[in-house]
Parts: sequence; structure tokens; C-alpha cells
Amino acid sequence: MTAPRPLVLSMGEPAGVGPEIIAEAWRALSSEGAPFAVIGDPELLKAQGVPIVEIGQVADAADRFARALPVLSHPVSAPVTVGKPDPANAGVVADWIERGVDLCLSGEASGLVTAPIAKAPLYAAGFRFPGHTEFIAELTADAPFAGTRGPVMMLTAKDLRACLVTIHVALDQVPQLVTGERVIRTARVVHEAMRRDFGIARPRLALAALNPHAGEGGALGLQEIEVLAPAVEALRAEGIAITEPRPADTMFHDEARATYDAAICLYHDQALIPVKTLDFWGGVNATLGLPIVRTSPDHGTGFDIAGKGVARPESLIAAVRLATEMAAARAGG
Amino acid sequence: MTAPRPLVLSMGEPAGVGPEIIAEAWRALSSEGAPFAVIGDPELLKAQGVPIVEIGQVADAADRFARALPVLSHPVSAPVTVGKPDPANAGVVADWIERGVDLCLSGEASGLVTAPIAKAPLYAAGFRFPGHTEFIAELTADAPFAGTRGPVMMLTAKDLRACLVTIHVALDQVPQLVTGERVIRTARVVHEAMRRDFGIARPRLALAALNPHAGEGGALGLQEIEVLAPAVEALRAEGIAITEPRPADTMFHDEARATYDAAICLYHDQALIPVKTLDFWGGVNATLGLPIVRTSPDHGTGFDIAGKGVARPESLIAAVRLATEMAAARAGG
Repeated sequence: MTAPRPLVLSMGEPAGVGPEIIAEAWRALSSEGAPFAVIGDPELLKAQGVPIVEIGQVADAADRFARALPVLSHPVSAPVTVGKPDPANAGVVADWIERGVDLCLSGEASGLVTAPIAKAPLYAAGFRFPGHTEFIAELTADAPFAGTRGPVMMLTAKDLRACLVTIHVALDQVPQLVTGERVIRTARVVHEAMRRDFGIARPRLALAALNPHAGEGGALGLQEIEVLAPAVEALRAEGIAITEPRPADTMFHDEARATYDAAICLYHDQALIPVKTLDFWGGVNATLGLPIVRTSPDHGTGFDIAGKGVARPESLIAAVRLATEMAAARAGG
Repeated sequence: MTAPRPLVLSMGEPAGVGPEIIAEAWRALSSEGAPFAVIGDPELLKAQGVPIVEIGQVADAADRFARALPVLSHPVSAPVTVGKPDPANAGVVADWIERGVDLCLSGEASGLVTAPIAKAPLYAAGFRFPGHTEFIAELTADAPFAGTRGPVMMLTAKDLRACLVTIHVALDQVPQLVTGERVIRTARVVHEAMRRDFGIARPRLALAALNPHAGEGGALGLQEIEVLAPAVEALRAEGIAITEPRPADTMFHDEARATYDAAICLYHDQALIPVKTLDFWGGVNATLGLPIVRTSPDHGTGFDIAGKGVARPESLIAAVRLATEMAAARAGG
């Protein structure tokens, strides 16, 4: 068995909490044997008080990681003021992500962890994607992929994997966006990802209902009968193990979570409320159905707390661990 | 100081889990000094293997409770088959509730705990209320009440009190039902109940947003700006402490719950997902804004498990404790 290839970690918004939580993550993980290389600005990382080592290629991270934080140097374009994002650095922030994707596609890196980015300065500089996920989906669109393509967003907390059919939309748009087609596509991506990225031979999916009490036989909404039940039937005909639509409030306690490998949730808060209630600081966002492994912390750039030494690294640490686990499963265990 | 007046507990659907969890609740609570009297069928309770004592008036429960389960006898009309509700008993089930309400209104009982009822047999017998809550609201409608009248449904789990603006409606009806008027009325009832029933001098309310990220400045929905923010402003002008609409996924972890006394939630699953994730078995449903104290377990009649000895009494036990606490606060201590 060869040592696992390192992950790469894109540094994210340089004026946010990224540099400090990356340094903390290295401190926490340097002895774990799951190495990563940061794509970013070496001076900003050095300023966090951790030893860094500039490396020329990702593979060099493997045996340096225990002693110093490996960096693939790619400096910022303009000076960074903590807490003040500058559109002058938007290009380099996007470049870090793009280089991370390229290193995964070439096989040099085993997966990509993305530190948080700020949308406003990126938009001001002409970035045209709603966020990381869509940008990475576009960057990997031409890469071969033997499976149902996502992106599907998955949030994790403790043993909960919550996958989303709709994401960043107003609640009043959700009922019409929850179509049979979207539910089926999402469930296929999740089913395949459970096998490919988590090594689960026979994944068990739990489907959340849209309405209270799963619609109570139609008295509290018809989507369970008209949309979700037929989707379940179609998925089962494909050999995918998925429950009937279940009342969402009965799915997320300890005993319920033990009955499935992934939950298919229909809207943002249906997934995010249990995730953040179970583990507010350690949740991870993973993108399923891509040619590459990609995870990120489940929080933003924290401009208001950046540089104050109070940003919590748990989510980034969990994101590195999850990407390591997924990359190992893709590599065959 | 006089001993607290006992609670009364309506026995609920006789063919469900009611009798067995009532017996279990007495076993758990008989030494706690928070007595209750059951309004129901003495034979059904005796069959659960607990000592019972028939009493003539609620006050007699106080000094009997430690040794036997006090019962205000009111037998069923037709023989009971476990797991098979019979509309022939619907009248007596409704009578138990009505008698419980009367005993609270007369001051003989300090509060009412209702064991679960089944809607189908009640409807078959002509009952015309959506559920317990509306029936009790109707029964107390003419009683004097110095406050904003509910009913408002509150669910509890651990230290979370989650109060609902809309309840049993399809999700696609929620956005239009979340009006400023409903939010304001709900928050008033909750504010007053925190003072009257929980002894909190300056209640802190947290308002959940409707949309993900609280609408993200309008990009993900306008209800926060158009409906919720003006309601907050109006409530604050009345001296009610309530937050801006908060992203619902950031409200329910341990640290967040410590910042408020009650959450105002806009729809069923927004409240019930965190409640049941935090404590699936011990949640309690309380009705705020009534002339009487009323709580109930947060589960149904369990026809599928009734009589098998597996029904869990935690929720009923917690409902008795909560009613005891609320009654003590109403009594001024």
C-alpha cells in the first residue's frame, strides 16, 4: 500500500478567518497522517505563527506535513487588511480554487478542501458563479466521471449526512422546485456517492417529507402523494433503497439516524436545522457527484471576528478529515 | 404556604397507550410531591398493575398520591379492545377533557394534562374540533382571562421552548399565513406566558426567519423585510424584547438556546425538528394563552404498540412536571 496522496486546501478569502483557522487545523492535524498542502499566500500563513514550508509539488506535502504547514505559494495581488476584503484580490482567490481543482483532476491531489470565500468582492471583480459549488462544478464539467453528476450539497454533523434537493431559494419557491425529477437525480447522486466516497455497499437513504406529519394522508399537503411517493417508486425500481417520505421531525434524533446512511432533505433549513443543532461548530459541507472530492467548512469568512484569535477551526478540521475519508474510499479503501 | 393543588389528567383514548403510560408516570412521580388525579376509567388503570384509589374530589389526591394513583371515576361506555378505538367511547373521552377543564376553571385543579386522543373515532362520533387544543380553547372561551388570549402551541425539549405561529398546514400555505398580525399576536401571548407561567420577569424572545440565511438581505425572500422586521418593530414598541428574524439553523444549538427564553417559530417542522432532535422521547406540548394551565405529551395514541409494554412514558412525565411548574408560577411561586 502506498501512502495516500495529500489533499490541497484553497486558502479562501485572505481578509477573513481563513489564514488563522488553516493554521489551527494544521496544529490539530499535523500528527494524524492526513496531509494537505495549502494553495495560497505563504506570508499570510507565516503571520499566524505556524512553521511553514514552501513546496514545489503536492506530493512533497506528505513527508513535510508533520513538521510544517506545506504551501504551494501563490501570493495575493494586493496587501490584505484583516476584516476588509479587497476586490483586487478576487482574481487570486479564484485562481487558488482553480489550481486546486486542476491538481485534483491531474491526480496529484486526492481532494480539495476550500476555505470560505466572500461573494461580494468576487462579484465586484466579475465572478459569475453563485458560489464555490457551482464554480467547481463548472471547472470539472469536462472531466470524465463514471456516475450521475451533481453537484449535490451534503452537510454533515456527527453521524448525520443531510443532502439537499433545493438549497438557496426562498421558502415559498421550495414546493414548486421539489419535483420528482430533482428528487430522483439527487437520490441517485447520493446513492452512488455513498458507495464510491463512503464505501457503503448497500446505502440506505431516508427521504424527508415536505409537509408536517408527511402530509397526513393528504390533509396537510399533496406533495407526498403526488411527487414524492412516485419518485420513491422509481428509485426503488432502480435498486436504490429509500424510505417513504418521513415526517421530518422524526428523522434526526440518535435512534432515527442509526436507521439510514444519508437523509434526502427538500430545503435548506430542513437539513441545516438538525445539522447545526447537533453540531454547530463541526459541520462540514461536501459536494457529491463531482469528478473530484471536495469539502469545505460550513461557515463563512467571519470578517467581524477575523484576526481576533476567536475563530473556531472545528469545521475546517472536520472538512479535512471528511475529505481524507472520501479520498481513501475513492482510492479503494 | 399551602400545599399546591393537584393537577388533573384526562385519560385520553382508552384503547391507546394512555392507560399504561399514566401508570408509568405515577410510578415515576409518586415520590415527587407533584400530585395529579386521573379523570378516567378505574378498571383500565387497575389493569396496569398499579394501586389505585378512587377519590371524590381533586383535593383528596394530594395526600393519597404517594401511595396510590388517585382516580376521579368516570367509566368508559363500551368495552375497550387494546389497539382498536371505538367511536362508542368518543363521548366519554370528550367528557374527561371537559370535566378536566371545568375542574381547572373552578380552581379545584391547578392545571390539566391531557393524554393523547385519536381523532378518527371522535370525528366519527361528531366531535367538531381539529384537536385537543381547539376544544380546550372553546371550553375556556367564556372564562375571564387577564391577558392576550391564545391558544399558542409551545413545544419543549431540554431548555428549548419553541412556540408556533402556524401549525398544521401544508408547507406551501405557510408563507401567506405568516402575517405580521399572527406574529405579533403569538409573540404577545408568549411574552405574557413567560412572565405568568414561567416567572421570567423580562422574557427574551428569539424570532426565527422564514427563509434560509434570514433572506440574505432580500436575495432569498422578502418576508423578513416586509413582514417580520415591521412586526419586530411593533413588538419592541410595546416593550417586548424580541430579536430580529434569525436564520433558523443558527438558533437551536446549546449556546444559542442560552440567549433566549422562547423561540417564535413560523411553521411546524421549524419548531418540531429541533425539539425532536434534541429530545425525541421527552418533548412536551403546552398551550399558552388560556385561562387554565394545559400540557400534553408530544406523541399520539400509539395503537400499534399499545398493550405491549414498550410505550415510553417520558413525554407524559415531562408534561406533568411542566404543568406543575406552570401552575406554581401562576399561583405566585
